[in-house]
Amino acid sequence: MAKNTTTVSDLRQERSNPPFSINDMTEFYDGGSEATKKRKLISSLILNNPAFKWLERHYWTRDEAYSSNVQCLAEVAKILRKHKLNVDDFMHYYWLVSTIGEVVSFEMHLTTWKSALQDQGTSEQQKKWLPLVDNFKIVATYCQTELGHGTFIRGFETTATYDPKTREFILNTPTLTATKWWIGEVAKTATHALVMAQLWTQNKCYGPHLFILQVRSLEDHTPLPGITLGEMGDKFGYNSVDDGFMQLSNVRIPRDQMLMRHSKVTLDGSFIPPKNPRLTYVAITLYRCQLLMLCSNYLARASTIAVRYSAIRRQTETKPGYEPKVLDYVTQQNKLFPHIAGAYALACTGHYMIDFGKRATERIKLEDLSVLAEFHGISSGLKAFCTEMSVSGHIYNNWLASCTYEGENTVMYLQSAKYLLRCVKNPKSAPLGVSAVLHNPPGKHWDVKNMQDLEKTNTVLEAYRARAYKKVAIADKYLRELQSGGDTSYDAWNKSGIKLVDCAKAFTHYFVIKTFFNMIEKSRLGQSCHLQLHRLSILLALHGIDQNTGDFMLDNFIDFEQIKLIRVKILELFSEIRPVAVCLVDAFDIPDQTLLSVLGRYDGDVYNKLFEWAKEAPLNKTQVHSSYDKYLRNLLTSKL
Amino acid sequence: MAKNTTTVSDLRQERSNPPFSINDMTEFYDGGSEATKKRKLISSLILNNPAFKWLERHYWTRDEAYSSNVQCLAEVAKILRKHKLNVDDFMHYYWLVSTIGEVVSFEMHLTTWKSALQDQGTSEQQKKWLPLVDNFKIVATYCQTELGHGTFIRGFETTATYDPKTREFILNTPTLTATKWWIGEVAKTATHALVMAQLWTQNKCYGPHLFILQVRSLEDHTPLPGITLGEMGDKFGYNSVDDGFMQLSNVRIPRDQMLMRHSKVTLDGSFIPPKNPRLTYVAITLYRCQLLMLCSNYLARASTIAVRYSAIRRQTETKPGYEPKVLDYVTQQNKLFPHIAGAYALACTGHYMIDFGKRATERIKLEDLSVLAEFHGISSGLKAFCTEMSVSGHIYNNWLASCTYEGENTVMYLQSAKYLLRCVKNPKSAPLGVSAVLHNPPGKHWDVKNMQDLEKTNTVLEAYRARAYKKVAIADKYLRELQSGGDTSYDAWNKSGIKLVDCAKAFTHYFVIKTFFNMIEKSRLGQSCHLQLHRLSILLALHGIDQNTGDFMLDNFIDFEQIKLIRVKILELFSEIRPVAVCLVDAFDIPDQTLLSVLGRYDGDVYNKLFEWAKEAPLNKTQVHSSYDKYLRNLLTSKL
Ligand SMILES: Cc1cc2nc3c(=O)[nH]c(=O)nc-3n(C[C@H](O)[C@H](O)[C@H](O)COP(=O)(O)OP(=O)(O)OC[C@H]3O[C@@H](n4cnc5c(N)ncnc54)[C@H](O)[C@@H]3O)c2cc1C
Ligand SMILES: Cc1cc2nc3c(=O)[nH]c(=O)nc-3n(C[C@H](O)[C@H](O)[C@H](O)COP(=O)(O)OP(=O)(O)OC[C@H]3O[C@@H](n4cnc5c(N)ncnc54)[C@H](O)[C@@H]3O)c2cc1C
Repeated sequence: MAKNTTTVSDLRQERSNPPFSINDMTEFYDGGSEATKKRKLISSLILNNPAFKWLERHYWTRDEAYSSNVQCLAEVAKILRKHKLNVDDFMHYYWLVSTIGEVVSFEMHLTTWKSALQDQGTSEQQKKWLPLVDNFKIVATYCQTELGHGTFIRGFETTATYDPKTREFILNTPTLTATKWWIGEVAKTATHALVMAQLWTQNKCYGPHLFILQVRSLEDHTPLPGITLGEMGDKFGYNSVDDGFMQLSNVRIPRDQMLMRHSKVTLDGSFIPPKNPRLTYVAITLYRCQLLMLCSNYLARASTIAVRYSAIRRQTETKPGYEPKVLDYVTQQNKLFPHIAGAYALACTGHYMIDFGKRATERIKLEDLSVLAEFHGISSGLKAFCTEMSVSGHIYNNWLASCTYEGENTVMYLQSAKYLLRCVKNPKSAPLGVSAVLHNPPGKHWDVKNMQDLEKTNTVLEAYRARAYKKVAIADKYLRELQSGGDTSYDAWNKSGIKLVDCAKAFTHYFVIKTFFNMIEKSRLGQSCHLQLHRLSILLALHGIDQNTGDFMLDNFIDFEQIKLIRVKILELFSEIRPVAVCLVDAFDIPDQTLLSVLGRYDGDVYNKLFEWAKEAPLNKTQVHSSYDKYLRNLLTSKL
Repeated sequence: MAKNTTTVSDLRQERSNPPFSINDMTEFYDGGSEATKKRKLISSLILNNPAFKWLERHYWTRDEAYSSNVQCLAEVAKILRKHKLNVDDFMHYYWLVSTIGEVVSFEMHLTTWKSALQDQGTSEQQKKWLPLVDNFKIVATYCQTELGHGTFIRGFETTATYDPKTREFILNTPTLTATKWWIGEVAKTATHALVMAQLWTQNKCYGPHLFILQVRSLEDHTPLPGITLGEMGDKFGYNSVDDGFMQLSNVRIPRDQMLMRHSKVTLDGSFIPPKNPRLTYVAITLYRCQLLMLCSNYLARASTIAVRYSAIRRQTETKPGYEPKVLDYVTQQNKLFPHIAGAYALACTGHYMIDFGKRATERIKLEDLSVLAEFHGISSGLKAFCTEMSVSGHIYNNWLASCTYEGENTVMYLQSAKYLLRCVKNPKSAPLGVSAVLHNPPGKHWDVKNMQDLEKTNTVLEAYRARAYKKVAIADKYLRELQSGGDTSYDAWNKSGIKLVDCAKAFTHYFVIKTFFNMIEKSRLGQSCHLQLHRLSILLALHGIDQNTGDFMLDNFIDFEQIKLIRVKILELFSEIRPVAVCLVDAFDIPDQTLLSVLGRYDGDVYNKLFEWAKEAPLNKTQVHSSYDKYLRNLLTSKL
């Protein structure tokens, strides 16, 4: 009578004869064989370290979670020293390995802080501070947001006033709303912070700048005089991190603790402006590109769990005595396969943008600033679009906040739209890739007549390009009409808001699909892997059209017959992907130890292990809970 | 220099001159003045009881959360006795008041258990067991799902075998996957369970039936012989509830503990089948209607927090020295106002369906079963559609599971689709309301020429009806084509899955919009309230079209010019709703004590109170955390 007990062999069977090399696919996903090697090395160093007690986390109190996190920080420092690893590499992979375990407490320390310093610090400042960070002689954090302001940086109230007599800056948070807020690791861990404050000198305000501030004693870890630090309380997710607040009252720091690569304050207090104020945004823009990899990672984890479980879960008799795996239901495939494709697409976008960021940084160092606007315009749209894609299935709690931090998504879309409209207005200033979309009207009708046409990446991409072109044109026209109708530029901008967000989304969607297609094309993968990726990319693209038919049908560019073809093609792709679905998620190569999911176990032994796992639950330590004596016994036994 | 300190007066100003009676609106939302009175009474009884320590919950361990929950159970029993309240009324409002606080631990006891018993128990069984439940002489739970099966009820493996010699049933969970799983309150609290098991008698299996089983001693609360009970571990949400598992080994219960209103087993073991096997689904269907109220409640809570906070939060300078409230941004309105409308719409749908359920139950009692299929067909679509609507903005963690329990949403849509296709096939069996949609082809083109046309509810509704009509027809045609093309009926059904879900969604969407319109029309509200609700209902309907333009443009029913009109109208509605947005959420009447959100405070004093709240965080009890000495000191002070 036993049913549903074939889970292990069910999963084994899914892997029995993979028509492509899973290892090659993993290397593609990681961004090359070198990358896979590095990831595996760093992953093993972490996973073999007993401080990383991933599975136990489920039952930890806030205090235990935080404490373990600090322990991990210390262990990471040891690992880095012992194995003489490159810190930036390490962090890149450490992140990817540890996302779900929530061990992220030195994100600020080794990423934001460092990149801001590299980006905006003078070479002396870098020489002094970077080794301290790399060697964990200090723990650093990044202090920007205030209680009263997040998005609107110019509105920050924290001040840094230059005192030429002592050659110091005096830092203050003069109001309650100036309190620095949501600052990762500042509450209990950090010894130093990069503080964003309004620079005042010679009685004039020159806007927000970054300052290095020691916040805690290196002797006994107590907050330094004039500095109040505290924790914000429990959150949905990130509870191992001590996000907190900071208040400053007349705290003095030496002049050389203002980051002065671009703006400068001379000894006597004169202000020297930067060549390009946008230069101050490079660090955060680079960081946004890193986020794309995490977007992919979260989707990959969720897909791994859901696909594997769906391949062992049997439900609903469809023939006498036979229950299919739920992965065989088309509705289930519809829920999962686009996300597998999405994880690969986001990885491609991430690799591409990190590379773009590196090239951009090189050019900026050579004082070539032309690339800056493009980098910023495109990456802000991507930040919003990709985080949204990665939380679209209600995926992970602690990842939801990615839609808010590092630039709130609506605001990001609006910035991207602003860039696109500027490109429309000044065709000459627009880079080639953007021009190709915005200054090249699409044909009247989509060139798709049959199923084969739907396999051509150029043809499919053209639908996205046409949509982006039109959506940008609509927003642009609307905005101009409102302005010429007499609206102030703010009112016109605000009233166009929905259309602006729409146009940035459409452009970014195009960009993601294009990058996915290109990266597959460019890769030197064997034919069998190539075929799988081609299918996934076409699926993602067609699914995107099917989810937004109204957009693509604009001006009848795509017609109903073509939409019908798309739907047939999607079902065909589902049936082609179905037999390799488990192998495709295996290729993400996420070990059970960090997947942290009994349902997603590699070996498929779900029911046995789920039951064992449940038995370990702390509430099972006693048969009768203490609350029985306190509250229930009386209730149940009293006479009415 | 202080900014952003006008939050209290900002919120006061939003309420300064409401153009409608908030009290009338509250009564409409609650479903009448009597309902408001009852809710307020029950709310005050709970909120004034010190056992309900809502705010403290944030920092509780699992054990503390569970313990407090049991205490609340005991307090509720006392309240019920002392105030001689109607138990069903009480539970209805108790739920709505306590959703966020996660005090839900006797949901099974007073709702599912009771309605199943009322529905399927004989009058003797009701006479014996209902008072025990109402008076808390036992704590009861509902035990259906197994480790191996959820959706597929016929696949359950738990058995109840009749032994005519002793006139007992012998209950067994013969395999690991037969283990009852996900059972609310069974792990630590319940003394009795309604167990669903395969009925075996005279060597034949008659499918799943319900049995009353005592699981714990009423003397000392230990599990009875042959019964293994345990907890499942921590979850996302519902951590005050002891969801658990149950294994049974030859547990004997007297014959009269099978619920025998419909199916019967005689003394000698003969089986007497029910008149209509669907009768066994009435309880769960009724419960699904209750869920709709909770859907509304969660949306109302989320909207209250977001709208109030957006009305005090100022961000981004748009004129020198002036930062608007973020609620003034059209993009923000677009994120929030449809959800306000959604909360009202779901409440209307909930009230309507609860009433429908009552009428249906009456008719069923009179042996008139015609209404059963309609009730089940419509409520399964609603279960899925409304829970999805209520989690659409990543709203509440603990509410997400509503998409799974009480019928997994995809499966619900498929059931609804099955019903709709049956109505297509047998027009005579279709009730009037369904026939009006499915057997009445829409016109060629939507009758909208100008903005005024968009205010006519009939006209707007016709767009939804046309979409439902077409989507059902498409699914029906596709399915029939596949079948006549030689597919087995299972294969055809599976391949049509996406279209089937689509058609059920389209029908249910129509149903929700229609019900919202009708309930407003029917209400005897004054003109000023009526006007606001009319706007909200038109907004919800037009927003729904705008989100699904492709569907509505099918066969050019709606054209591009009309879509453009809709978008203009939506902006107009936003600007009309903006001044009353805060009053509209105030009308949900959710007290701060259960809203549990500093951002959503009624008085708008957000910054001061947020800071105070943060300072109370447990990690702030010490300046230097114990982990410093354990892990950090060494790291920071050691020489390299
Ligand atoms: C988990 C987490 C960790 C964080 N860690 C750090 C950290 O370590 N250091 C740090 O400095 N900060 C940190 N932050 C803060 C983060 O950077 C801010 O939350 C973010 O910048 C958004 O600002 P805000 O929260 O003030 O939202 P707001 O800017 O107030 O936005 C509120 C709403 O108003 C809308 N809005 C605002 N301006 C406009 C506009 N001009 N047009 C249209 N709509 C608008 C937004 O779309 C949004 O819906 C963290 C945040 C989180 C959630
Ligand atoms: C918080 C919570 C509390 C609960 N409390 C209780 C309780 O007190 N008592 C109780 O008895 N149960 C309880 N449940 C269990 C709940 O009723 C089941 O989870 C639900 O019935 C779904 O079953 P399943 O989880 O086995 O999913 P499955 O049925 O296994 O579904 C898995 C996936 O397969 C798909 N699928 C399944 N069948 C089909 C099909 N025929 N066609 C297409 N797709 C299909 C589904 O769409 C889904 O994506 C609870 C669950 C939760 C999450």
